Amino acid sequence: MNSVSERTVKKAAAGRPAPAGVKGIPGGITAPKGFRAAGIHCGVKKLKKDICLVVSDTPAACAVVLTTNRVQAAPVLLTREKMERSRLCRALVVNSGNANACTGERGMKDARAMAAAAASALHVSRDEVLVSSTGVIGQFLPIEAITAGIAGAARVLSPRGGTAAAEAILTTDTFVKEYALEFECNGVLARMGGMAKGSGMIAPNMATMLAFVTTDAAVGPEVLRVALARAADCSFNRISVDGDTSTNDMVALLANGASGARPLTEAAGPSYDAFYGALERTLIALSKMIVRDGEGATKFIEITVTGAADEPSAVKAARAIANSSLVKTAIHGEDANWGRILAAVGYSGIEFDPSEVEIFFGAVPILRRNYTIDFSEKDAKAVLSRKEITITVDLHGGEARASFWTCDLSGEYVNINANYRT
Amino acid sequence: MNSVSERTVKKAAAGRPAPAGVKGIPGGITAPKGFRAAGIHCGVKKLKKDICLVVSDTPAACAVVLTTNRVQAAPVLLTREKMERSRLCRALVVNSGNANACTGERGMKDARAMAAAAASALHVSRDEVLVSSTGVIGQFLPIEAITAGIAGAARVLSPRGGTAAAEAILTTDTFVKEYALEFECNGVLARMGGMAKGSGMIAPNMATMLAFVTTDAAVGPEVLRVALARAADCSFNRISVDGDTSTNDMVALLANGASGARPLTEAAGPSYDAFYGALERTLIALSKMIVRDGEGATKFIEITVTGAADEPSAVKAARAIANSSLVKTAIHGEDANWGRILAAVGYSGIEFDPSEVEIFFGAVPILRRNYTIDFSEKDAKAVLSRKEITITVDLHGGEARASFWTCDLSGEYVNINANYRT
Repeated sequence: MNSVSERTVKKAAAGRPAPAGVKGIPGGITAPKGFRAAGIHCGVKKLKKDICLVVSDTPAACAVVLTTNRVQAAPVLLTREKMERSRLCRALVVNSGNANACTGERGMKDARAMAAAAASALHVSRDEVLVSSTGVIGQFLPIEAITAGIAGAARVLSPRGGTAAAEAILTTDTFVKEYALEFECNGVLARMGGMAKGSGMIAPNMATMLAFVTTDAAVGPEVLRVALARAADCSFNRISVDGDTSTNDMVALLANGASGARPLTEAAGPSYDAFYGALERTLIALSKMIVRDGEGATKFIEITVTGAADEPSAVKAARAIANSSLVKTAIHGEDANWGRILAAVGYSGIEFDPSEVEIFFGAVPILRRNYTIDFSEKDAKAVLSRKEITITVDLHGGEARASFWTCDLSGEYVNINANYRT
Repeated sequence: MNSVSERTVKKAAAGRPAPAGVKGIPGGITAPKGFRAAGIHCGVKKLKKDICLVVSDTPAACAVVLTTNRVQAAPVLLTREKMERSRLCRALVVNSGNANACTGERGMKDARAMAAAAASALHVSRDEVLVSSTGVIGQFLPIEAITAGIAGAARVLSPRGGTAAAEAILTTDTFVKEYALEFECNGVLARMGGMAKGSGMIAPNMATMLAFVTTDAAVGPEVLRVALARAADCSFNRISVDGDTSTNDMVALLANGASGARPLTEAAGPSYDAFYGALERTLIALSKMIVRDGEGATKFIEITVTGAADEPSAVKAARAIANSSLVKTAIHGEDANWGRILAAVGYSGIEFDPSEVEIFFGAVPILRRNYTIDFSEKDAKAVLSRKEITITVDLHGGEARASFWTCDLSGEYVNINANYRT
């Protein structure tokens, strides 16, 4: 699976040159120093790996972004409690195959049991354990199998365990999603690594989008929180497969300082910028992998809205295009249906002058100002027949821009989602 | 086509008993007295009827609801101008096959030419002509063919022309949508009739949802405006096929008073209530037909949210469920995936307690309070295998309720929309 993942990484990271001092490296969550991980099968799923443990050798500062859905799974509720009590983290435990969502009191008890099992196996405090789950909603966890699995995973923790861990958090994903880079931070070389699961996405097959990122840079919890909130907003909040959001979405970031770099204590300055740049790059790489693995996806689409009055308007317009079933099906059919793109901007809620809009597919101008259409179907088709499509919409109404990543909508998406639960 | 339409009407109207004095009758837009109509082929489409003319023998009061999309087709812009100049209407002219949207100055000139052609053929003022278009975006109208078609349609106007007119406004629709009823209004028997086109819906194959309703009740323009705004909100604004809204959406209501009923001069009182009830019933019947004919639809779904704190919350929750691709594909697959329904309510933005929610498929309880799941897959499957499915979500948080109508999402939807334009 590694080679698929690596190829994807290369594709995902292509397009934007790396900033000075930043370099992609192999591996994922255990690429930074001082992290070990394991992923094994414990019996939630029939055969595949379903329990993942990630451990920092020393207490790591920690930040999380949690689902905004009003229906929140037990591990999400527990994570809120944990973060109020402690912003340090020694271990992350994740099961796949069962979301532990809509499971009431018993679900909370089970989530606590997962934290306790990890704490006990690793001899750390329960408040320093993050718990996460993904899978089917509304069923109780097989908690004995899971606690036994946690103990088993603790016995095989390894600094080379990143890929096994990344496998163990997948549900209907078709490939492992991991990414790592090194960057200069306060004069020393630090590393960052991450893993994610998506597919069906933003509320895929019930329980959704997870991403976990580690770094051996030294960053305080508050700086970590500010950086993660902003970077998640520019990455995971700018991808869309079907527009739904789930009960279990979670992004977590752990920084253990094992690189020996001096701690970042404020969210400003060149060292913070280097750290933030590495983080945004990592999260965007993982986001794009999730889109590429969207259920039934056959094409990867980057939508860029430029010339907007402000960034929120650019984001709104790009999101409306990315979420439009009509746009996504047209691109699936390789049909240069620019009218659907313009109509989506029209109902996005932003102010703009439709007659000023220009639309490009790749480098081919499709719609020019004053509704001027002068393109060859052949040129448009040449762009649309690719697996990677960029759509640029210039509103000619300002200087702001934003990108959004999505995939086409295929008949296969319907097949996968029509029969997931049964 | 009539028999398909009538069968559909019967199904659509089933479920709610008609109020006293209200009775469904055959026909559509020409069922009320004093209206004539025609639908012919003029050459926008290859073979099918593509131009529709509806005429009131005397000036009718008129109200419209227009698309909220910022991108507005020329006929929509012209209709705004017309309504500012006059709220009386003698004629309605509609072409299908070409939306006259994103066509700039020339599009406006063509829309005006359509109004002028109808005014000239019928010897009425241009300001008393409503113009509407539906079809492909971004192409200029074949205006000579259309003006010739308008003259031709004027020569074959007939009080029996309703169904031909209803045929001429269709695009990818698979059946004619018309409905009529009679009702008591100010002591005399009045009639109301309507026709609609949808399919792909709420922004189908570019240029969308049209509905036109006539009545021989006598109603002033301001009362008509108030009634239409409210009734459209409870009908066309509560249906969803794919969530997009289009550049050409239009609903128009004409009242010519030919029944001899005394005029309704205020939006209150028993006579107004009778009129409003007839209007809402007509619009809901047409709305349901549009959903039934949703692109690729194989199932008709009524979603009712009860126990909401207020009506806007009930509507928001019902809309989120109806617009969820995951819910719609699960129902297509006859999968009792209640988790997706609860998750959709969760991201709808309303306040509620997830553990209080109950979900029913038909009469079968699927989810009870405190996340209690105790249903047989067989019973759930029996409901989901039907062509007509009702889903009820009780939030147990208040007294308000709202219904929404939608259809399942099939692979066929993708096929239709992937290759519409080419």
